[in-house]
Amino acid sequence: MKWVSNQANKFVELIEQRQNDICGALSSIDNTPFQIDEWNRPGGGGGNTRILESSTFEKAGVNTSRVFGKITPSEVPMFTQLVQKVDSHFQISKETQFFATGISLVIHPKNPFIPTVHANYRYFEINTNESMLWWMGGGADLTPYYLIESDIQLFHQTHYELCEAYKSGTYHQFKDACDQYFYLPHRKETRGVGGIFFDYLNQDYAPQYELVSNLSAGFIDAYIPIVKRQKNRAFSEKERQWQELRRGRYAEFNLLYDRGTLFGLKTNGRIESILMSMPPQAAWKYDFVPSPESEEGKILAVLKSPRQWIFENE
Amino acid sequence: MKWVSNQANKFVELIEQRQNDICGALSSIDNTPFQIDEWNRPGGGGGNTRILESSTFEKAGVNTSRVFGKITPSEVPMFTQLVQKVDSHFQISKETQFFATGISLVIHPKNPFIPTVHANYRYFEINTNESMLWWMGGGADLTPYYLIESDIQLFHQTHYELCEAYKSGTYHQFKDACDQYFYLPHRKETRGVGGIFFDYLNQDYAPQYELVSNLSAGFIDAYIPIVKRQKNRAFSEKERQWQELRRGRYAEFNLLYDRGTLFGLKTNGRIESILMSMPPQAAWKYDFVPSPESEEGKILAVLKSPRQWIFENE
Repeated sequence: MKWVSNQANKFVELIEQRQNDICGALSSIDNTPFQIDEWNRPGGGGGNTRILESSTFEKAGVNTSRVFGKITPSEVPMFTQLVQKVDSHFQISKETQFFATGISLVIHPKNPFIPTVHANYRYFEINTNESMLWWMGGGADLTPYYLIESDIQLFHQTHYELCEAYKSGTYHQFKDACDQYFYLPHRKETRGVGGIFFDYLNQDYAPQYELVSNLSAGFIDAYIPIVKRQKNRAFSEKERQWQELRRGRYAEFNLLYDRGTLFGLKTNGRIESILMSMPPQAAWKYDFVPSPESEEGKILAVLKSPRQWIFENE
Repeated sequence: MKWVSNQANKFVELIEQRQNDICGALSSIDNTPFQIDEWNRPGGGGGNTRILESSTFEKAGVNTSRVFGKITPSEVPMFTQLVQKVDSHFQISKETQFFATGISLVIHPKNPFIPTVHANYRYFEINTNESMLWWMGGGADLTPYYLIESDIQLFHQTHYELCEAYKSGTYHQFKDACDQYFYLPHRKETRGVGGIFFDYLNQDYAPQYELVSNLSAGFIDAYIPIVKRQKNRAFSEKERQWQELRRGRYAEFNLLYDRGTLFGLKTNGRIESILMSMPPQAAWKYDFVPSPESEEGKILAVLKSPRQWIFENE
């Protein structure tokens, strides 16, 4: 792996550190350890998949991976599409190599009052003999089943502060991109209440690295307090059923639209690591529409029409 | 709808009759009526969606629809792809109209010893001022959770007899197409134990109509006896969990690969009617692999390597 740059290696170190930190924070809730699977990718590289099933977390997955290799002829169209988002003149040849690394997590709690959460931070590098292209992407988004405004505000506010420290205006840009990305056109609703999303960021490595470092550390502050507030709240069978129906929408998004999932399936990724994002239990019911006045109807209204959640700094 | 041909109208009458027959047969099992929804398509046409929830059937949907209209500019690429399978010289213009009708059913029983089943028979017509193109497609396939060979044989044998009455060799052709179509490459397994599948059949209307008429009537003979044999069989929580995990694969197939589902979503179809195929309850568990000797392992082996199920006539 001589051809991998220092900045790639630095990013790998960061996400491995964050994987340990986040798994530690999640483990400590019920004092239950993660199951850890190391895996190798036949073409080059591999990953570390960690899964937790505990009394609070019905299924939590925190993965890291670093995969690399020559771009095979069948992968050229896909990589061409990718690099053209960054540099429209970049040419992929038979000698081009790619390197991709990232941390990806999806947490499905048992209690319907704790939101499902997803986060992902990633680094790509494309190398030819003559030139190198790199970019970062990532984000974090919250999928609550009930409208508990203070929890949603905490999640957004934490991300807002960290984005604004990078550059003023960043949060709103990333927040809008998130609402756009996690949209299910066939349902005319968003997957959840959003958060932040960015991709193809390749201006300046050092401040971007700092941003990703802060966001991936800030994830713990943005989410763990919500878990602690809600984990002992009593819930009914009706609330559980609503959670499962909404998880059906989560499955729809991941299999129909999610670029990461489809990229993984197309590049012959490790299926169990890619699909650890799927909900442990999901349901579909014909034509179920909650009444607008119900608690279920209240969160649905927000998914049909995204809101602002932050208190702006002066 | 003056431009719709007699053969289109005849096909519509057939599937409406079959919808009544099949719903009648399913209803009689628990003496429970279907919920019926008539719907209109803004661009032209509509459908009749029937849903049953009873003690045997956790969710059964039997839909018919007939939709038609001018092909809009954004639909041209999709329809061009379709018609080229039938006639590579056919040109779609601004004046081209389409007509599509079909019956589509998916039955998800509660008891894991009763297989899930899907069937669909459809007719397409494309009209310009000068010319007309038509074709039929369809099939039926079984998704058992446990390997009960006599049930699977009944399903295949019934379809075999009907296909061979149409033309010798048809069953094997349709059976192979079915195994190919219902394949999940990322799982390296088929969705179920297959059945029959065909598309773009446009040789001769009368015998094809006869074939579809017989197959759609034969569906009742191929499936209802299985339901009656197994519906009172006791099952455990473990068997129910296995059923839910396999239904997760069913959801994966429908959202990642099924042409009908993706066609419906792309053409702005009625979402609740398209997604009535989704399982009522599904589950995903990280890296669950049953032991090869277990009952779960036995059906999995068949999904990894499709079998022959029929007794050939001399």
